[in-house]
Amino acid sequence: MKEKVVWQGSTQLAPVPVVLVGCGNNTDIPYNLITVAWAGTVCSDPAMLGIAIRPERHSYGIIEKCGEFTVNLPSRRLAKTVDYCGVVSGRDVDKIKKCSLHAFPGKSVSAPVIEECPITLECKLQNTIPLGSHTLFLGVIEAIQLDPELIDPSGRMDIDRADLLAYAHGHYYGLGECIGHFGYSVRKKPGPVVRK
Amino acid sequence: MKEKVVWQGSTQLAPVPVVLVGCGNNTDIPYNLITVAWAGTVCSDPAMLGIAIRPERHSYGIIEKCGEFTVNLPSRRLAKTVDYCGVVSGRDVDKIKKCSLHAFPGKSVSAPVIEECPITLECKLQNTIPLGSHTLFLGVIEAIQLDPELIDPSGRMDIDRADLLAYAHGHYYGLGECIGHFGYSVRKKPGPVVRK
Repeated sequence: MKEKVVWQGSTQLAPVPVVLVGCGNNTDIPYNLITVAWAGTVCSDPAMLGIAIRPERHSYGIIEKCGEFTVNLPSRRLAKTVDYCGVVSGRDVDKIKKCSLHAFPGKSVSAPVIEECPITLECKLQNTIPLGSHTLFLGVIEAIQLDPELIDPSGRMDIDRADLLAYAHGHYYGLGECIGHFGYSVRKKPGPVVRK
Repeated sequence: MKEKVVWQGSTQLAPVPVVLVGCGNNTDIPYNLITVAWAGTVCSDPAMLGIAIRPERHSYGIIEKCGEFTVNLPSRRLAKTVDYCGVVSGRDVDKIKKCSLHAFPGKSVSAPVIEECPITLECKLQNTIPLGSHTLFLGVIEAIQLDPELIDPSGRMDIDRADLLAYAHGHYYGLGECIGHFGYSVRKKPGPVVRK
């Protein structure tokens, strides 16, 4: 048996997504952004995701009040913006303006779609689950907005073109090379080409 | 306003972790592994994570019955094993044996720690939330097991040495270069070195 080091439990699941969560409606509640790495898909049908936010964060009350939010997936070139939106508060700074981002309302929600992010998931809040330091908001993904540049000639999304960011143990990463796709371990190899 | 393409909602949060969830106790319930990409951190204090599993999967009943599970983070070199454990069922195959993996019980749970994975999170099931196609299991992370090779000379974990896998839009990826760490956008640069 290989020797292991045992530590007490901590949040070491990795890599995780790191996203710009948008909230507010730009009418009575100004738009705000908060960077969230405690995020994950939780259901395929209906398509749902979860984001975990501390109750003391400015966006918390906005999401609770509006009952909707967006999840904007940033590209690698937005890493510094993503970090900034995780360390300053919307109580003090208009982060969208400060970061020179552009926002417009979603198709299914009033929360902001961030133009500079290649992929945005529009979510309606379904469950609010207090857990301790964080509350888990579960949202149904109602619509997705994509940069047209992500669509390949066959009409499918080419995720590599989004150049997405990941987060692990306090560090931001780009994705490396693609290793394989779902099911590749059991796929029969095509037979040899027979030249006639 | 930049033109976007609008699609109906689907599970496009990315990148997400892709982990080997271990279950069973190796006494009355044999060990099993299931690959899960619908996983995320949900709380820092207590340290908690969520994994979403379809009720029809073999591991589902085992986790419900045992009330515990492990989350084993695989290295890039395990990509094919990870894929395999996501497409075959523990009803038909002893995946641990078939993949030449080695398992031993955790410190805080009886569920299997997979020796070949550099990081294992031992979890006790706290909430079971049915959502539709998937049920979200929330677990408290009780302990962590790490390969000693991950610990740097200062006693901290060097996550780069784990060479972790990510998953995006049906594809497996390694992580690319580290871009920065939390707070780097607002850190004051050190002043110039003054030569006396």
